[in-house]
Amino acid sequence: MVGYAFMGKAHSVGWRMAHRAFDLPLRPEMRAIVGRDRAGVTAAADEFGWDSVETDWRTLLTRDDIDVVDICTPGDTHAEIAIAALDAGKHVLCEKPLANSVSEAEQMVAAAERAAARGVQAMCGFNYRRLPATALARQWIAEGRLGRIYHVRAQYLQDWIADPQSPMVWRLDKNRAGSGALGDIGAHIVDLTQYLMGEQLTGVSGITTTFVPTRPLADGSGTGQVTVDDAAVFVGRFPGGALASYEATRFAVGRKNSLRLEINGERGSLAFDLESLNDLWWYDNADPATEAGFRRILVTEPEHPYAGAWWPPGHGIGYEHSFVHEMADFVTGIATGRPASPTFAEALRVQQVLDAVERSAAAGSGWQQLS
Amino acid sequence: MVGYAFMGKAHSVGWRMAHRAFDLPLRPEMRAIVGRDRAGVTAAADEFGWDSVETDWRTLLTRDDIDVVDICTPGDTHAEIAIAALDAGKHVLCEKPLANSVSEAEQMVAAAERAAARGVQAMCGFNYRRLPATALARQWIAEGRLGRIYHVRAQYLQDWIADPQSPMVWRLDKNRAGSGALGDIGAHIVDLTQYLMGEQLTGVSGITTTFVPTRPLADGSGTGQVTVDDAAVFVGRFPGGALASYEATRFAVGRKNSLRLEINGERGSLAFDLESLNDLWWYDNADPATEAGFRRILVTEPEHPYAGAWWPPGHGIGYEHSFVHEMADFVTGIATGRPASPTFAEALRVQQVLDAVERSAAAGSGWQQLS
Amino acid sequence: MVGYAFMGKAHSVGWRMAHRAFDLPLRPEMRAIVGRDRAGVTAAADEFGWDSVETDWRTLLTRDDIDVVDICTPGDTHAEIAIAALDAGKHVLCEKPLANSVSEAEQMVAAAERAAARGVQAMCGFNYRRLPATALARQWIAEGRLGRIYHVRAQYLQDWIADPQSPMVWRLDKNRAGSGALGDIGAHIVDLTQYLMGEQLTGVSGITTTFVPTRPLADGSGTGQVTVDDAAVFVGRFPGGALASYEATRFAVGRKNSLRLEINGERGSLAFDLESLNDLWWYDNADPATEAGFRRILVTEPEHPYAGAWWPPGHGIGYEHSFVHEMADFVTGIATGRPASPTFAEALRVQQVLDAVERSAAAGSGWQQLS
Amino acid sequence: MVGYAFMGKAHSVGWRMAHRAFDLPLRPEMRAIVGRDRAGVTAAADEFGWDSVETDWRTLLTRDDIDVVDICTPGDTHAEIAIAALDAGKHVLCEKPLANSVSEAEQMVAAAERAAARGVQAMCGFNYRRLPATALARQWIAEGRLGRIYHVRAQYLQDWIADPQSPMVWRLDKNRAGSGALGDIGAHIVDLTQYLMGEQLTGVSGITTTFVPTRPLADGSGTGQVTVDDAAVFVGRFPGGALASYEATRFAVGRKNSLRLEINGERGSLAFDLESLNDLWWYDNADPATEAGFRRILVTEPEHPYAGAWWPPGHGIGYEHSFVHEMADFVTGIATGRPASPTFAEALRVQQVLDAVERSAAAGSGWQQLS
Repeated sequence: MVGYAFMGKAHSVGWRMAHRAFDLPLRPEMRAIVGRDRAGVTAAADEFGWDSVETDWRTLLTRDDIDVVDICTPGDTHAEIAIAALDAGKHVLCEKPLANSVSEAEQMVAAAERAAARGVQAMCGFNYRRLPATALARQWIAEGRLGRIYHVRAQYLQDWIADPQSPMVWRLDKNRAGSGALGDIGAHIVDLTQYLMGEQLTGVSGITTTFVPTRPLADGSGTGQVTVDDAAVFVGRFPGGALASYEATRFAVGRKNSLRLEINGERGSLAFDLESLNDLWWYDNADPATEAGFRRILVTEPEHPYAGAWWPPGHGIGYEHSFVHEMADFVTGIATGRPASPTFAEALRVQQVLDAVERSAAAGSGWQQLS
Repeated sequence: MVGYAFMGKAHSVGWRMAHRAFDLPLRPEMRAIVGRDRAGVTAAADEFGWDSVETDWRTLLTRDDIDVVDICTPGDTHAEIAIAALDAGKHVLCEKPLANSVSEAEQMVAAAERAAARGVQAMCGFNYRRLPATALARQWIAEGRLGRIYHVRAQYLQDWIADPQSPMVWRLDKNRAGSGALGDIGAHIVDLTQYLMGEQLTGVSGITTTFVPTRPLADGSGTGQVTVDDAAVFVGRFPGGALASYEATRFAVGRKNSLRLEINGERGSLAFDLESLNDLWWYDNADPATEAGFRRILVTEPEHPYAGAWWPPGHGIGYEHSFVHEMADFVTGIATGRPASPTFAEALRVQQVLDAVERSAAAGSGWQQLS
Repeated sequence: MVGYAFMGKAHSVGWRMAHRAFDLPLRPEMRAIVGRDRAGVTAAADEFGWDSVETDWRTLLTRDDIDVVDICTPGDTHAEIAIAALDAGKHVLCEKPLANSVSEAEQMVAAAERAAARGVQAMCGFNYRRLPATALARQWIAEGRLGRIYHVRAQYLQDWIADPQSPMVWRLDKNRAGSGALGDIGAHIVDLTQYLMGEQLTGVSGITTTFVPTRPLADGSGTGQVTVDDAAVFVGRFPGGALASYEATRFAVGRKNSLRLEINGERGSLAFDLESLNDLWWYDNADPATEAGFRRILVTEPEHPYAGAWWPPGHGIGYEHSFVHEMADFVTGIATGRPASPTFAEALRVQQVLDAVERSAAAGSGWQQLS
Repeated sequence: MVGYAFMGKAHSVGWRMAHRAFDLPLRPEMRAIVGRDRAGVTAAADEFGWDSVETDWRTLLTRDDIDVVDICTPGDTHAEIAIAALDAGKHVLCEKPLANSVSEAEQMVAAAERAAARGVQAMCGFNYRRLPATALARQWIAEGRLGRIYHVRAQYLQDWIADPQSPMVWRLDKNRAGSGALGDIGAHIVDLTQYLMGEQLTGVSGITTTFVPTRPLADGSGTGQVTVDDAAVFVGRFPGGALASYEATRFAVGRKNSLRLEINGERGSLAFDLESLNDLWWYDNADPATEAGFRRILVTEPEHPYAGAWWPPGHGIGYEHSFVHEMADFVTGIATGRPASPTFAEALRVQQVLDAVERSAAAGSGWQQLS
């Protein structure tokens, strides 16, 4: 695994727990963790439970005991590491967003295709597909339970930099992060809605803004320029005619991690909020009017996706379980030769949508058609 | 009062109750109700409690016992009636939307200005400004309790024509209704957000759609063409930099009358849903992080706007109370000579925004600047 | 109508609106309001819309233009007024609780039986039976939709005297009010649960407490003794085997008017909270486990009890509508000769339950069997 | 660890994760798991990650590499194993309820006291004390933030045997389980409320019932007798004057794991529901009436109890994290010599309360004073 910050910690739980919760055909071994700072990565290896440390990710590619490279670094390094790893024959799990630009993402897709020809797999880590509630929603939509879909409404609301005095960090630097709220959390809702719909957006229009353009540097040495968006709002269309609306922001004061979805179809509607991740709300339009209402389904029944691996009904799971499921699916994909989604090609599509939003915002919010 | 359908009934409750709930300087008398069908309007007069009936609204203008004309008819007749009534020296309360087009609305504003010079008042019936929860929100925003505002998020979701077999009605005919979801319910959220912000949108961009273009005629004689939008999604900007997103639809299956608002400011956030109209949710960013959370305020305390006229804390009010408050404020405006808002000029501004959304939708969702 | 405080105001709305909202066989006329203080009652007559005033309720009994006496006074006067009115041939609507003691209530039942023989009706004003949500719940339970019922859980939580410095009022004086939270709001949940179940409690056990035994007098002249309970918690059994739990308190800080019900049956469960009075929550145990959940039914559909008289789906009603429904049902009962419930006999049963709770509390919480 | 069913699995996660999430002075090693069926326990060891298996728990007591015995077996075996283990010098973590009878529990307390004299620790596994939300509630009550407490309201609602055809299991056999809903889930709410209050109940009164007295045997060989309660409702008093009400049931259809608490104090109120375990609701009575309301605190801030070990704000945790926290606290207690609560003596107190409820139920719900 490359990287040992927040995502490194979450992925480590995923790797440690996957074969405990699920009966996997292969059992992951946590062989090596990589970081440039030897002291830091050594402490992380101890805390997270990795067998060895490396300070250069390239070393992993030469180690025979490494089959999988898991990339948890900032977006500007994804392409280089992923392409090299795939070309070296290592299966790759890459954190989202896939890359900081469409062109990098395209190169990664090409590498993934080369690798696939040799049986080497690549997957992008959109973990929110892998909650019981979202997976159940996907299943029901695919089965046609919502009928024709009219509306997709998606918001990812956070507030961690709403305070103008909150300091400059790498995620606010376009060179490192690629984009701001749009690429970091907007990517999640674009991926998740395309996944749920089983369709890809055909066009978008939107606006972005940077509310706080300069921020104090963390070391007190002055101020830094915020070069990414603080928030983006955009609309889109799906091939089947559904209207979609999106909002991604780090300035929704009071919303800590509120990824909200609502999908309205002719036969029913679904709603979800990540701040209550064990719940899925379902309105069944087949119910008589006098009995109909949005019902709160606790997605904790043994028959629900992933839930059977955990606890009895009503005993909820938490955020990191999405990573346990991700690792389980990825490992199963490797073992069976049937790669788990999202592939790099699917992740590229997300990148293209984000890119189209940025182009629309730069062009007076004009419509950007997606091929 | 002209018109005796749904709005006529709601306004009648308003007129009957206003001076019971509030200590008004003038006491409204319910003198006459107008409808073209004598039998129908006579029954309505009896049911709603009006003293007399007329079959031609022009007659009202000649009656000395009529001081106020309340217009509850479809939008295509608003301009003619309102202008004639104002020119005849009658105070006018006109249901929203003000008119079916900007040019009609402009003529109405001109008539209102002429009338104002003679002490005759005109007001537009955006009743949702007059719920305790929305009025409290306005008060707090005006006081600066939210600080700089980052986000405005407004949706008005209904589902009454989501069934493609639901028959053709006048609200789906552009000639009668002017527009569809956009003008009917989108008008409410545009007015409400501009009212809450104390600012007017500087530009918008959006898309609209008609999901079901033909519908059965109610009399079984064939099908009719739906000539209005079924749904609209749009984004906008406020002068202070806030990003706004809007959605108006009659196809949100399961949402019966869900006008939802959320406003995120630097110092706090507010949220509201018309389906729970006695509640206002407030996040106070001054609270320590460990204690902060969205709190559900029951807006039923005697100190809350309008609420003191009603019941003890926790005893909620209903939809029609918004009309009681509207009539009370309108009558107070007449009595005091200080007209209640929204004036026709404010309502024109709403019309201009809706018009800009339609132009944007027709022009590839390009940005439409509002002067 | 006798009395012009809070209940007098609420009942006045009921009398004014009942024939507007419903197509009644008789149209109520608001002839006279009674209060001992002429100035006060005159102002109330003007505000609430009554034609005349009286300062002695006995006068009503001699007036030929009075057919109905509506008693909204404190509980210690109910028996005298109701018995005299019934014996004088006036239909009587009496606010809950029926009386301050079982023996008074028994005399009232006897008077009601005498009156019934002459076609004169008597009803007790348990208004919360007459919300769309509670009426729907009753209908479903009567239809057997919940199957065998296991649990009844009822709480009526208020907080208006939780502050120990809140002054002494008549409701805290046993001589005037009969009892405290138990008789005032506990009566509502006992009546409502017996109504919903269609069964009467067979026994109870409970405890009561007075948290604040002395309070300042409102006139500043010293302190007064609180001689009623501040809170009561009790349990009971229904004939069909259901376990019931109850709590009535004025010390639940933050709960303004939270009458909460939950009923769990073999085939499904219902939940309700008066602070969101348009909602009924329903869990249908026939749903597959993967799809089951408590659903929020907006009880605003035209087919729902009472709701058809009001607004379109999703447009909620308020507290006072329960009185409009009460008056409509009472008037319909008189017109048709089929008295509306609750009769005085039913209200006596509530009194007997409250009395049994008090006896249990006085006797070490021992079980009190109800015949 | 002795036992490998549901609790064995949950405890295993706790042991595996505790030193990953927290910086512990000692690092647990998962040495041995015990079960009578060698094949079953071997599979569990592999799945849960234990180094070795034993088929007789007595063997653990002789192994020098075992410092801690974790007892996850049914309640009828707790006393024998715990006493032997403590006497053998092993620290003991025992699942709740402590025992099946007060006398067994008393013997366990005696053994724990003997052991304590030798520095050997004993703790009972009431894991719900160790959620961020409940731990925060405890902290605030201890700080006096609620002021004088008036009401404690606790319910533990499940529905897993509400179907009368659900088969007989050991938890319905008094000889194995000791009691039914009362001892299994009622124990949790008794412990939790006593913990939150920092006080012990001074008396109780209650009733219990068995709705379904016979059930089919799982092997199809006939029916078995249910010898425990299906539900219990009871009331109690705390020394400071608070009234408490309790309900424990397995027949609340639709409630899967709903442990609900509400505590009303003079200065504020707290509410919690285990089905939304990351939320704590707080009403601050110091807020002005116009601004006050129950606020939903997401107990996921780094300053919240336990939460700093996990994810950023808004990223919730799940059920099993309570066990991670339990193991972390237990290990810390051993390492520091300051035992974590609840001690066996505290757990005995819970047992005494449950016993008093049973005695009350058997004696016409008469009051049972607790010394």
